[in-house]
Amino acid sequence: MTVELYDTTLRDGAQMEGISLSVEDKLRIARRLDELGVHFIEGGFPAANPKDVEFFERMRDVRLNNAKLVAFGGTRRVGSDPEKDPTLNVLATAGTEYVTVVGKANDLHVREVLGTSLEENLAMLSDSVRFLKSKGKGVFYDAEHFFDGFRLDSDYALSCLRATVNAGVDGVVLCDTNGGTLTEDLLRIIEMVQARLPNVPLGIHCHNDADVAVANSLAAVRAGVQQVQACINGYGERCGNANMVSIIAGLQLKLDQQVVTPQQLSRLTEVSRFVGEVANQMPVLPQPYVGASAFAHKAGYHTDAMTKVDNAYQHIDPAAVGNQTRNLVSELGGSRGLLDKLTELGIDYPLSRDEARSLTEKVKEMEARGYQYEGADASLEMLVRRTLPGFKPQFNLDDFWVVLRRRDSSYTDDDNKEMQAEAMVKLRIYRADGDEDRVIQTAADGNGPVNALDAAVRKALADYHPAIYNIRLADYKVRVIDSAGGTGANVRVLIECADEEHTWQTVGASTDIIEASWLALADALEWWLIRHE
Amino acid sequence: MTVELYDTTLRDGAQMEGISLSVEDKLRIARRLDELGVHFIEGGFPAANPKDVEFFERMRDVRLNNAKLVAFGGTRRVGSDPEKDPTLNVLATAGTEYVTVVGKANDLHVREVLGTSLEENLAMLSDSVRFLKSKGKGVFYDAEHFFDGFRLDSDYALSCLRATVNAGVDGVVLCDTNGGTLTEDLLRIIEMVQARLPNVPLGIHCHNDADVAVANSLAAVRAGVQQVQACINGYGERCGNANMVSIIAGLQLKLDQQVVTPQQLSRLTEVSRFVGEVANQMPVLPQPYVGASAFAHKAGYHTDAMTKVDNAYQHIDPAAVGNQTRNLVSELGGSRGLLDKLTELGIDYPLSRDEARSLTEKVKEMEARGYQYEGADASLEMLVRRTLPGFKPQFNLDDFWVVLRRRDSSYTDDDNKEMQAEAMVKLRIYRADGDEDRVIQTAADGNGPVNALDAAVRKALADYHPAIYNIRLADYKVRVIDSAGGTGANVRVLIECADEEHTWQTVGASTDIIEASWLALADALEWWLIRHE
Repeated sequence: MTVELYDTTLRDGAQMEGISLSVEDKLRIARRLDELGVHFIEGGFPAANPKDVEFFERMRDVRLNNAKLVAFGGTRRVGSDPEKDPTLNVLATAGTEYVTVVGKANDLHVREVLGTSLEENLAMLSDSVRFLKSKGKGVFYDAEHFFDGFRLDSDYALSCLRATVNAGVDGVVLCDTNGGTLTEDLLRIIEMVQARLPNVPLGIHCHNDADVAVANSLAAVRAGVQQVQACINGYGERCGNANMVSIIAGLQLKLDQQVVTPQQLSRLTEVSRFVGEVANQMPVLPQPYVGASAFAHKAGYHTDAMTKVDNAYQHIDPAAVGNQTRNLVSELGGSRGLLDKLTELGIDYPLSRDEARSLTEKVKEMEARGYQYEGADASLEMLVRRTLPGFKPQFNLDDFWVVLRRRDSSYTDDDNKEMQAEAMVKLRIYRADGDEDRVIQTAADGNGPVNALDAAVRKALADYHPAIYNIRLADYKVRVIDSAGGTGANVRVLIECADEEHTWQTVGASTDIIEASWLALADALEWWLIRHE
Repeated sequence: MTVELYDTTLRDGAQMEGISLSVEDKLRIARRLDELGVHFIEGGFPAANPKDVEFFERMRDVRLNNAKLVAFGGTRRVGSDPEKDPTLNVLATAGTEYVTVVGKANDLHVREVLGTSLEENLAMLSDSVRFLKSKGKGVFYDAEHFFDGFRLDSDYALSCLRATVNAGVDGVVLCDTNGGTLTEDLLRIIEMVQARLPNVPLGIHCHNDADVAVANSLAAVRAGVQQVQACINGYGERCGNANMVSIIAGLQLKLDQQVVTPQQLSRLTEVSRFVGEVANQMPVLPQPYVGASAFAHKAGYHTDAMTKVDNAYQHIDPAAVGNQTRNLVSELGGSRGLLDKLTELGIDYPLSRDEARSLTEKVKEMEARGYQYEGADASLEMLVRRTLPGFKPQFNLDDFWVVLRRRDSSYTDDDNKEMQAEAMVKLRIYRADGDEDRVIQTAADGNGPVNALDAAVRKALADYHPAIYNIRLADYKVRVIDSAGGTGANVRVLIECADEEHTWQTVGASTDIIEASWLALADALEWWLIRHE
């Protein structure tokens, strides 16, 4: 029996403070989760807001290879007819094979929060599952506050589960909604459920409020639970959900569960970082398995011992999850991963050993400056292309000025503000047609410095490449890298551009946000120009 | 029997990538740990480096009320005479009542890393403990790689423990040095140790490489282990040590262990943040129990349920650990939530119904412009304060210019770049002392536009508020709000500032990133000035 990975990053994970995912973000993450090999992707409630509506619409055209998309929502309302209930009808018509219904399993919450009778709640659970099953859906029941409910009134909590089982539910998910249950207590309750409801497929859904969510999830699987609900990087409301990344690695490497293939497992680090980038979250250096510090060694006797005994101070081989050992004194790493990446990007120029090594060095040097190529493939591609023999740059920005002025302004009354931004550029355009290179000097206004610079550069390029105006900036993110430096810290800018066919990501880093933005923008424009030559 | 809290933040915690503690830092942390009520503070090896030597020297004059300082070091060397062994003599003369000796408990490591016989390692353990006991010390044995060693050769691992027990050790600490042991396996091994070595006081020392360190530590205590070694905020090499903060809260609130007083427990959040500041680590918003997001609620039905059932979506009362519930304002329906929020912020001005309504309208209007007060309490507070009767602004930025220049540059060769940023400001300072307002015109360079602006404004303010330089920018995030607008879209800047006591967050929104940054920075500076008036 394989354990099922049920990812709820797009629903419960998006509840995290500071996370706000666009439809495009959700689509990108969904594709990566599918590649990673999770079995279910919970996408949200298909009527929660226009973004979620659009997401489920667009997912109708996305072909998933491993995962099933799941729509999530509540039961029918108190006293309503399931056939006419708006929530159930949305779930039934969301275009997914599976739906998850969340419903109360705690008598206190039924009475005080829902404000109805214990019997009506059982009827709501049962009616909702029966209705959705009649529409041909696979149905999971998320038993909200189950563990707290069980402690208050175990009979009632079990009746809730039983109501859905009798209605034909495909799995009952025990939720530690408030995240306060310790491992031993959780196991004790799971065992009692198994004794009272034998042969019912169970799932587990943990939150990390007591700092034990991963341990609880793994312990539950060991106790026989078949489905684990979790979020990439442990995103989620309050202290987050159980961390899917740690759970996948723990299941596969420590509990011998083949939840994904070894190839998929080896991309765990990449997926974790990709999702972090898209969600605009700071990477957690000490994150288990996938953090940049997870296999970093500072103590001299540790690094020394590692030369004598493999993994003397490591619990696993980091390559298994796509991570690597770092000796903090001297950053060493292989060029192997880079070559794999180039193949992936479709750059098939055969690099010699020396070229590969020097390229690896260049990447490390850029990373030390604050670049990060996870989630910025187009910049990595440009970095590589610029080192290949015969590379011809499209343009060079010889010089720019940006002037910003805010006057007669008062931050207490924004209506008085008058902000001006103007950029002057001197752009050298390299001609492919044998004509002489041209230097174009021009200027443009913008409603911000990057916008002004972007406008001036495109204006300079437009004579030769009028289609340059088809590129739109789809996303723009900035992150402080070394927070100790305050407003003088290094910043990393991630840009996502799109035209009618493609979406591509670039990165720039500098202490100066405008320069960092320019570097990312330059990569984005040049990447596009190369494709249109 | 009370469980002993053994803090190793100053030794194992300081091994974390990016942490470097000065002697002064270590002294400040030690005093706070003592106030928090931990029982042992491991200070380092008193000969590891000059800083640790000085730390132990200076600690001779520090009176601790709750904790015992512990010196940490290795056993005698292979083949050496304990009486003449340098390590043991350093430990014996460090001026501490207790010492902890780390030594191998894993036959592979004895043979391959230490390069000696299994018998010699046993003699090293036994001699070292006996020598230190003869000097009148309390002695703990950190059994390095114990769990891995037990799996390889349980008899030898147990002989190591027995060697120190026979030499009179005061406690044997089972170390999961590589952090890879899952809870169930850890418990199974602890039970076997207890069966073979009854009545020996045991300790536990976990690392978080498998993301289960807190669960393991708590499970070990439940199994009868008496001492827990851990680090504040889970600092430590690789993925960190077990998190002492979560362990204290878990022991006290969930396992009914009175490890500290309720008053000490109520300062847990403060201590966690203090240590984070001193160690110069980013606050982890979702950190269990003490993070700023730990009791933050975004989903509307959660905040609604909380008004009906106490702690409906919280596993404990946050006040118990000195933390608080936060209702994330963006999701608030009416002015009711806003009023609750103001109470939470400590603004007790009695608003009339109309005032409350117009304030709610103002918040909505700002949100429509791109502001988001979720995670920017200080900006919300400033927005409110500015509407209250009698509010006096601290300053106004009448005018600013920012000039950026990048010349002779080539993005393909960053070594040629030369980026200049300069800001000129005209700042009006409102005087509280009755003197006339002053307009200060000044300028400053920066390594980026926001840094230059920040520098110029602080320079203008510093005459009246020299302490303004104590504020540091802890985090800076930018997000494009409406991505369809490309580089001309609205951007939202979130800033987190910190001084020695507080951390506060502000927000600014504009199409111009510099203006948005300025608006957030202005709120941050003014919020701080109001508190320091």
